[in-house]
Amino acid sequence: MYYLLNLAIMIKVVLIGAGNVACHLYKAFKKADAVEVVQWYNRSTHAIIQYQNETEICDKINNLKDADVYIIAISDDAITNVSRKLPFNDKLVVHTSGSLNIHGLDKKNRRGVFYPLQTFSKDVELDFSNVPFCIEVLEKKDLPILKQLAEQIYSPFYKINSEQRQILHLAAVYVNNFTNQLYRIAHEISDIKNINFDILKPLISETANKVQNVSPYLAQTGPALRNDKKTINKHLKLLDNETHKEIYKLLTKAIQETHGK
Amino acid sequence: MYYLLNLAIMIKVVLIGAGNVACHLYKAFKKADAVEVVQWYNRSTHAIIQYQNETEICDKINNLKDADVYIIAISDDAITNVSRKLPFNDKLVVHTSGSLNIHGLDKKNRRGVFYPLQTFSKDVELDFSNVPFCIEVLEKKDLPILKQLAEQIYSPFYKINSEQRQILHLAAVYVNNFTNQLYRIAHEISDIKNINFDILKPLISETANKVQNVSPYLAQTGPALRNDKKTINKHLKLLDNETHKEIYKLLTKAIQETHGK
Repeated sequence: MYYLLNLAIMIKVVLIGAGNVACHLYKAFKKADAVEVVQWYNRSTHAIIQYQNETEICDKINNLKDADVYIIAISDDAITNVSRKLPFNDKLVVHTSGSLNIHGLDKKNRRGVFYPLQTFSKDVELDFSNVPFCIEVLEKKDLPILKQLAEQIYSPFYKINSEQRQILHLAAVYVNNFTNQLYRIAHEISDIKNINFDILKPLISETANKVQNVSPYLAQTGPALRNDKKTINKHLKLLDNETHKEIYKLLTKAIQETHGK
Repeated sequence: MYYLLNLAIMIKVVLIGAGNVACHLYKAFKKADAVEVVQWYNRSTHAIIQYQNETEICDKINNLKDADVYIIAISDDAITNVSRKLPFNDKLVVHTSGSLNIHGLDKKNRRGVFYPLQTFSKDVELDFSNVPFCIEVLEKKDLPILKQLAEQIYSPFYKINSEQRQILHLAAVYVNNFTNQLYRIAHEISDIKNINFDILKPLISETANKVQNVSPYLAQTGPALRNDKKTINKHLKLLDNETHKEIYKLLTKAIQETHGK
């Protein structure tokens, strides 16, 4: 593996954008043996000017340098437009969006997707070995370069088409945003009774750990699964907030539908 | 800390019940320096007979031995009845239930609660340092013995009254059962498009990790928080299952209520 990496040909990258994903990618590529960020473009250099001693900073799209791959890591709405403005043809241009179709990129270039399926926080250094990449290309010959990019930052990667990627983006809303809202509800109802939220943290961790090895279907337990009406009614009586109550009822129903109760 | 543990007086325990919690507690106490399970009672010895060379196994409640604490780890519905049948008075008797009030124990004995807030799997050895105990007593003098029990198995512990414990039990349903059902939905919609569920596992872990240090309120991201109607509608169109759709809408609404959108 290491031998292979050392033999890998240097990949020249132009990075486009200055948001969370772009910044984390920049830092990861910087540490990689066989990736060179030859230029970092953003419409305003304000956010990236601090890196001007490490790489070429640029805010004129017509001045983009030659590279093996152009990575557009900006908000979904702006990707198509920026891809149209690129001042060259037949280069490999990829975006990092979970929901934009690969055809959202202007067809004058070879198109691809390099979507990291993870939640990114500013200021927290990311371990890219925990960031799986969804890779898509239109021309087979472009696959190795995206694979090498992922390998260079020790990320797992999967070939995922645009239709699948949309589903993954949706699934990510369930396991990240919606799950986090359930944590929030637990925090809220605990706070009201002066209960330290720390007590719940090991259970939160263990619930996530369990499904790393066991399917969520088999991992399920609790009053909804057992159809324990006494406990369910007791819980509903404890809830004041109407939305919390609706969520309790709906997820209880969903568990029972899944398990055929 | 270690010095203290070594000086601790041996606690004699009689364990009542043969379910998941009882079995995990037995194994943890067995390894502890200053806890001795002097007897293990169950109405049928079938499930625990394999331990007869290590401790005294018993199925006659009238034959219970003298001990410092009697731990009733059986199903909620049966606790009150078993506590009434105990053939002694003024001993410390605790249950391990998340939802039963401390007064659910017969008042002829000194009462307490020793509730482990964690999800238990059969056959998987448990690390009790990840199992916080909710401790409750009616008489202050009984507190040290429950604290020592928790310390002896390296578990964190919190003083939690019966009202708070009910809320924690409810909160646990949100962060464990309901969260697991969201994982299940993600698994289901991924399967339909032949997507490997493994891709989502790092995100599941990171979502749980994040709230170990940041409040769920601050950890929130995504289309609901941004009120990104375009993405929300796109997602709703991708969902066929009515319950999945209802959950998407309701949790989106909940996130927006929480964040005042």
